[in-house]
Amino acid sequence: MVVAVSVPGENGSVATASAATVPAEGVSTLTDDVVASAAACDDARLRFVFETLVRHLHAFVEEVELTSDEWLEGVRFLTATGHKCDEYRQEFMMLSDTLGVTSLVDEIAHRASTGASESSVLGPFYTENPPGVAHGESIAAPGCGVPLDVRGHVRDADGAGIAGAALDVWGTDGDGLYDSQHSEHVVDCRGRVRTTEDGSFAFKTVVPQSYSIPTDGPVGAMLQRLGRHTFRPAHLHFRITAEGFAPLTTAIYAAGDPYLASDAVFGVRTSLIEEFRHGDASGTATLERDFTLAKTGAT
Amino acid sequence: MVVAVSVPGENGSVATASAATVPAEGVSTLTDDVVASAAACDDARLRFVFETLVRHLHAFVEEVELTSDEWLEGVRFLTATGHKCDEYRQEFMMLSDTLGVTSLVDEIAHRASTGASESSVLGPFYTENPPGVAHGESIAAPGCGVPLDVRGHVRDADGAGIAGAALDVWGTDGDGLYDSQHSEHVVDCRGRVRTTEDGSFAFKTVVPQSYSIPTDGPVGAMLQRLGRHTFRPAHLHFRITAEGFAPLTTAIYAAGDPYLASDAVFGVRTSLIEEFRHGDASGTATLERDFTLAKTGAT
Repeated sequence: MVVAVSVPGENGSVATASAATVPAEGVSTLTDDVVASAAACDDARLRFVFETLVRHLHAFVEEVELTSDEWLEGVRFLTATGHKCDEYRQEFMMLSDTLGVTSLVDEIAHRASTGASESSVLGPFYTENPPGVAHGESIAAPGCGVPLDVRGHVRDADGAGIAGAALDVWGTDGDGLYDSQHSEHVVDCRGRVRTTEDGSFAFKTVVPQSYSIPTDGPVGAMLQRLGRHTFRPAHLHFRITAEGFAPLTTAIYAAGDPYLASDAVFGVRTSLIEEFRHGDASGTATLERDFTLAKTGAT
Repeated sequence: MVVAVSVPGENGSVATASAATVPAEGVSTLTDDVVASAAACDDARLRFVFETLVRHLHAFVEEVELTSDEWLEGVRFLTATGHKCDEYRQEFMMLSDTLGVTSLVDEIAHRASTGASESSVLGPFYTENPPGVAHGESIAAPGCGVPLDVRGHVRDADGAGIAGAALDVWGTDGDGLYDSQHSEHVVDCRGRVRTTEDGSFAFKTVVPQSYSIPTDGPVGAMLQRLGRHTFRPAHLHFRITAEGFAPLTTAIYAAGDPYLASDAVFGVRTSLIEEFRHGDASGTATLERDFTLAKTGAT
């Protein structure tokens, strides 16, 4: 209930305030007031997210006793981050990545034990419907890196092979660049393979390289001021779909990579580290890796 | 110390990981890893702000168990907020205002008891060096609202008048608009007056009106989804400076305004509510109000 009360002003005039939300002098109810402002919201989930965000945001500001200058710097940083976003660049997603938020959201989404392989962040370089290649064929143009043979199986939680699963695969070339980062925008080191009757798959590509995320924006400047490097360990992305199974978005990280323990976007999970074996007579490296999918609706 | 350990991969191959920061399977050290990523930062304050932000941000995501779709909506919202910002519009500042963060930062900055009048948010309509007007003269063009006589004193903490203090004053016209919101951009309802020898000041303007903050951007859409209105109670802004005293940015809110208890930007403080007295024979309203400044460096 809102109750009108009278309080004396500095000149002895009478001011009318509402006792419900205008606090008594010196007593701050600010955080509660902001939380209460969404009381009429009819979307219960949105209200809960808003209220929780406000409480944590205010707790942060309180704990560091954020100054006016720091606040203004924060507003300018967020504005510059927004201005850096366009059709080809998502600086806010990169901010989320480098603060570990993207990885945390992914972790929460896959926390329930379904028996499936662990997931990893999709990242900004995925494209839908990559070109299909036949079993054993190459997704990479000749000469764009060290040749890599990749093979394995896609299985269900009981270990049975899944026939006809589609694996969308993408990775960097030998220069540590994705195809979309080249000015020509020619599809390369990217394709879709399908499993055979016994659930096995095989394709050729090149050994992916560790690489720096873009550093020419506000997030790059932030990382520099924080004394952080901007590299991701070498990895190969997989997005695996099969009828009746939950899609799996994951990546396989190269064992021994110097950035495994300090991935700029915190995407590495121990179960996703695998050796890219080098050194057969032809100079071709090999990656063997199986994946497990969970049935749709499994928890 | 970083220790290399071997863990078996799904195919029996050997993967090398770094025990210091790549967690054991199923055990998340993500938040700690992100916090630790700034360990080499040589700016202790920045590192503390970063670490605290990461902990609170992750705690928020954990508490609401933010979904991938909600995360994507958040990224899009922040991007749109950035794209709405230009030379004339600061949508991120408005986001901060409507989340109560601006008011909280202001509250923290003025928490120490200096004896000064309470402060309030500067807002987006302040301009430096407004036109000066003589004691008792008007800052408003004729006919742009209900005439208002404003008078009072600027005093030090001991009650002595401060001579030569500058008061930058700005408010809405009778239509609830600031001068900069009119397409002509003619300065109006805005000016600088100075106190006389005894610390008194007097000027004429028009009675300010409650008004809606801009609603044609992402923040307006957010407030609508939250079931919140977008109005600020009527108020007159003051920024008061005098040599030897800490500047005071504040506003006087009109007693009886229907939005006092639900200010869209949470700027109202009880001590800043004052009656705008209506109804002398000429139709002119009156506001009497004193301000107290704290000496520079007073705590």
